[in-house]
Amino acid sequence: MHHEYKPSKYYFTFGPCEPALRLRAGDTVETATVDAGGQDRYGNPVPDEMLQSSRETEYYKANPLVGPFYVEGAEVGDALVVEIEKISLNRETAYSKILPNFGSFTEEGPGMRLLFNKPLDEVRYDWSLDLAKKTGLLIVSGKRIEVPLDPFIGSIGVAPRFGRHETSLTPGEYGGNMDCVETKEGTTLYFPVFVRGGYLSFGDVHAAQGDGEICGVALETTADVRLKFGVLKGKGIEWPRFENAEHIMVAGSARPLMAAFKIAHLEMVRWLVSDYGFEANDALQVLSQVGTCRIGNVVDPNYTVVSKFPKKYLS
Amino acid sequence: MHHEYKPSKYYFTFGPCEPALRLRAGDTVETATVDAGGQDRYGNPVPDEMLQSSRETEYYKANPLVGPFYVEGAEVGDALVVEIEKISLNRETAYSKILPNFGSFTEEGPGMRLLFNKPLDEVRYDWSLDLAKKTGLLIVSGKRIEVPLDPFIGSIGVAPRFGRHETSLTPGEYGGNMDCVETKEGTTLYFPVFVRGGYLSFGDVHAAQGDGEICGVALETTADVRLKFGVLKGKGIEWPRFENAEHIMVAGSARPLMAAFKIAHLEMVRWLVSDYGFEANDALQVLSQVGTCRIGNVVDPNYTVVSKFPKKYLS
Amino acid sequence: MHHEYKPSKYYFTFGPCEPALRLRAGDTVETATVDAGGQDRYGNPVPDEMLQSSRETEYYKANPLVGPFYVEGAEVGDALVVEIEKISLNRETAYSKILPNFGSFTEEGPGMRLLFNKPLDEVRYDWSLDLAKKTGLLIVSGKRIEVPLDPFIGSIGVAPRFGRHETSLTPGEYGGNMDCVETKEGTTLYFPVFVRGGYLSFGDVHAAQGDGEICGVALETTADVRLKFGVLKGKGIEWPRFENAEHIMVAGSARPLMAAFKIAHLEMVRWLVSDYGFEANDALQVLSQVGTCRIGNVVDPNYTVVSKFPKKYLS
Amino acid sequence: MHHEYKPSKYYFTFGPCEPALRLRAGDTVETATVDAGGQDRYGNPVPDEMLQSSRETEYYKANPLVGPFYVEGAEVGDALVVEIEKISLNRETAYSKILPNFGSFTEEGPGMRLLFNKPLDEVRYDWSLDLAKKTGLLIVSGKRIEVPLDPFIGSIGVAPRFGRHETSLTPGEYGGNMDCVETKEGTTLYFPVFVRGGYLSFGDVHAAQGDGEICGVALETTADVRLKFGVLKGKGIEWPRFENAEHIMVAGSARPLMAAFKIAHLEMVRWLVSDYGFEANDALQVLSQVGTCRIGNVVDPNYTVVSKFPKKYLS
Repeated sequence: MHHEYKPSKYYFTFGPCEPALRLRAGDTVETATVDAGGQDRYGNPVPDEMLQSSRETEYYKANPLVGPFYVEGAEVGDALVVEIEKISLNRETAYSKILPNFGSFTEEGPGMRLLFNKPLDEVRYDWSLDLAKKTGLLIVSGKRIEVPLDPFIGSIGVAPRFGRHETSLTPGEYGGNMDCVETKEGTTLYFPVFVRGGYLSFGDVHAAQGDGEICGVALETTADVRLKFGVLKGKGIEWPRFENAEHIMVAGSARPLMAAFKIAHLEMVRWLVSDYGFEANDALQVLSQVGTCRIGNVVDPNYTVVSKFPKKYLS
Repeated sequence: MHHEYKPSKYYFTFGPCEPALRLRAGDTVETATVDAGGQDRYGNPVPDEMLQSSRETEYYKANPLVGPFYVEGAEVGDALVVEIEKISLNRETAYSKILPNFGSFTEEGPGMRLLFNKPLDEVRYDWSLDLAKKTGLLIVSGKRIEVPLDPFIGSIGVAPRFGRHETSLTPGEYGGNMDCVETKEGTTLYFPVFVRGGYLSFGDVHAAQGDGEICGVALETTADVRLKFGVLKGKGIEWPRFENAEHIMVAGSARPLMAAFKIAHLEMVRWLVSDYGFEANDALQVLSQVGTCRIGNVVDPNYTVVSKFPKKYLS
Repeated sequence: MHHEYKPSKYYFTFGPCEPALRLRAGDTVETATVDAGGQDRYGNPVPDEMLQSSRETEYYKANPLVGPFYVEGAEVGDALVVEIEKISLNRETAYSKILPNFGSFTEEGPGMRLLFNKPLDEVRYDWSLDLAKKTGLLIVSGKRIEVPLDPFIGSIGVAPRFGRHETSLTPGEYGGNMDCVETKEGTTLYFPVFVRGGYLSFGDVHAAQGDGEICGVALETTADVRLKFGVLKGKGIEWPRFENAEHIMVAGSARPLMAAFKIAHLEMVRWLVSDYGFEANDALQVLSQVGTCRIGNVVDPNYTVVSKFPKKYLS
Repeated sequence: MHHEYKPSKYYFTFGPCEPALRLRAGDTVETATVDAGGQDRYGNPVPDEMLQSSRETEYYKANPLVGPFYVEGAEVGDALVVEIEKISLNRETAYSKILPNFGSFTEEGPGMRLLFNKPLDEVRYDWSLDLAKKTGLLIVSGKRIEVPLDPFIGSIGVAPRFGRHETSLTPGEYGGNMDCVETKEGTTLYFPVFVRGGYLSFGDVHAAQGDGEICGVALETTADVRLKFGVLKGKGIEWPRFENAEHIMVAGSARPLMAAFKIAHLEMVRWLVSDYGFEANDALQVLSQVGTCRIGNVVDPNYTVVSKFPKKYLS
């Protein structure tokens, strides 16, 4: 069954909130995301009453999320399957920023504003997107920088373990704000189900981004997105897994960066052992020689590292 | 006004849940905590229906919390004041454990179970507490280890920033499971108010603990606790602060450990500048020469470091 | 001038030892490396008397190095230029290992053997190399794993800052055991000169390796190598830089991993500013959107991260 | 046998350099140290020709070291015993500094100067020492800060493992620049012998210092120091150990900070098991409840953490 979904509210949290839709395995949903700053395809801000703050609390308003989508039959211990069938950019602009207290060249701790050093000046960059040519253009330092567009969903995840509600800025074992270039059209995502129904939410589409998102902000824009949902019963995975034509992948999110790296690679070894007939030592040996990795982000409250294993060595 | 409070339910989350009581500045509350494993002063488990799991989710059942206490007049931007007037141990036993996948000698990442190494064997240690002599006794390796009791509240905090709901296992900018020996009788705590009312919760009393809680479990027991509440209007603090007769203190909680260290010391410099007439450079210089620090825990999802500054240098 | 160099001794240290040859800018050297375990192209161990231990000390015998090569005219503050003109594998076998106390799934600290967990069992893997087809073959877990060969020099560097002598296992500001797949044929390397003459040493050729060298050992083998030397006067660089047809690159080596990441990317911003006409903010913005990165190793005493910037955006 | 030693040269490296004296077990040495900036008890700089730079290299001139002292009979695998019999301050001034690119509020990486943030301004602080009252005085921010003196040796260590030569700024498995308040008069130090003779060097006396040495510079001054040397044959230790009347201690030095913490505590568990009759699990349990820890420094190329175990639990 196919659902066209027009959001009536946006959340700033991953967690078991009031479902936007109740779906069945096999259903598809098409909807539109707003950008990380809460502006839509026309550059208009989302009305305040649609921004779902939790009761009387002040909410950090970054990465408004569409959802959550409740999937019937998704029980704790299953894997929620999400195929990204389409990410179609629908705005001819994207913005990026350098921010005073965010990004990989500030301190590592949350809330660690620099006392002794003057913070960075805020600078806004407006990129022009040519949706036909699939390029983004920025003119800076007297140069014309034209980059290929490679859109992906920056924030996508389920309700966290232990019924926590996590801010839409944080990635973790539930996925979330991984800011990782691999969650793009044609890729299938597998999430652990920690809460019955899964509660998938997403948003924060990036038109392009380098490894690490080092200044803290990618090419932030809007898109039409179509997802297909499924459930793998009893598929006990611990971290998000991805799959495309070339690779199987695992995304680990934690601090320090080395913990994210280890999580991703250890979960990859488990996958090779459980599904592909490798002995554990052999899986480690082959992954050591043919594995590659992408760093998603080094700026969010947890960092994200993706371990990639080429499918040609799986048969 | 004084309140005797007998808990009817226990939460496993810091966050703006249904208040246990609504208090005014100046009120005191006396209540009893259960141990980290959910057993009361008689060694009886808390009935399941009193364990407040969030809807249909599986909840991690460690550190059941009493509260939350809503304090009238505590607004975002204020500091919530909590004086620990009494921690009176009320059980003659405490337990500790070595656990297969928890503690500072396992890997750092959440969920990073060791694949290639056999996990530790679980071992339980039962300490006898002599409440009159104020000592704890353990007989191991043919030795009689008798330690002085020094009880403190392991987990105490307010609703987190951004309206998040955090598991009772995690410390952060809201306090929480800091597992830090300084939150003891006679100490006053100051928490940032992130959500109107503050929503203070606490539990997890330890009869004694070393720095870092390195095996992951202290002398876990139960106590009668009396707290006095207050509000400092407009006192914009960013992390928990403590004060006793000898020291002012700041608790930073983050990963990696160095981030927790920097947070605690940077917030201490801010405090010395804002309240005690130091120039920033001079505050850094004097803190460098007279400051001491305690490591609360290096085992929880965030680590906790406490910066201590002797009050004799404040006049 | 071209030099055919047949080593008479091998060092286990980067540092200003007795030069193997004194070269001039423009000179080329062709020589042969032995493998990380000290065996030559015929599988014979290097005679003990050729292994250069420092006086009466016990020396850790991994990664025997050829050199050091003293380059006339290379002064402190210059950059030493090393073009890798050829890496020609010359043995039909490579070995790898899983080791009890080395690799990314052991603890992070140097010398941190696991006390509570049983260490990994040592396992040796022998790969067959088809030098004509340029493939390596391993049969494990009932599978035939055939990988493309992509040889590179694992350890290459100059004498460290402050006249230190560093073990051949450690990478740093002087290059060294970066174990990074980018130091391959066709790439030009730029090293800071910390000691007059530069004192370049190298060895430890790998026939192939994945990102991070996660088990701690790549496809260890031997090769004929030809290097061309040059000097850039007054080129004050702080970390090794690489360049090939597609990218300019910087290698940062440090612990924790995030420090290596920041070093590489910050030095890349400096390069974009000093040589390519970018304003600092603009360099950070463009690098954030088009930069990629490779993780060299996460197993050596320092970890190595390589920041890569596409040359097409430099014009 | 007692030796009065007047240094004729100072080294900036730990490593097997030309010995200052050859000693036997049981010998004592009395000598005088200069301060971290190379000035003697009269405030005069050490003449350049006495500063031992290695051949033609530029040397980083911090922490000039007295020594190295070669101890006959100290073989690889033994422990070198060093009793600090006396640290007698002999100058009425100590200096400290805030530095642009050093200290815990700059970045973590070696050489990671901030590009985007203006560095700290250099500030010098001159403390007056009252050697009779044993106090130090600084007048800043309109306050009179008078602190008790608690002198210790900032840098003391043997030749590193693998015959490396390490800069006098770096602590490690050989001790070195631990900047840890526990290496004071009345304490006995045990170092692993990595090179025959041990080659003990020391310097950099601090009149007082807080935990972490957070601004990067303590109360830097000069002292008369008397050490007594011994050898424990076949005492295979891996990291420096200390002992005073109250505690046995282990100093771990590494990055990240958590690695230093783990090293110190794991080696402490090993010590409790090998010498004091604890089972490993029991040692971990008791250390978890009664252990304390001091952070030596968080500013040097490796950080130092000291695990402390009270001797009253050893009988």
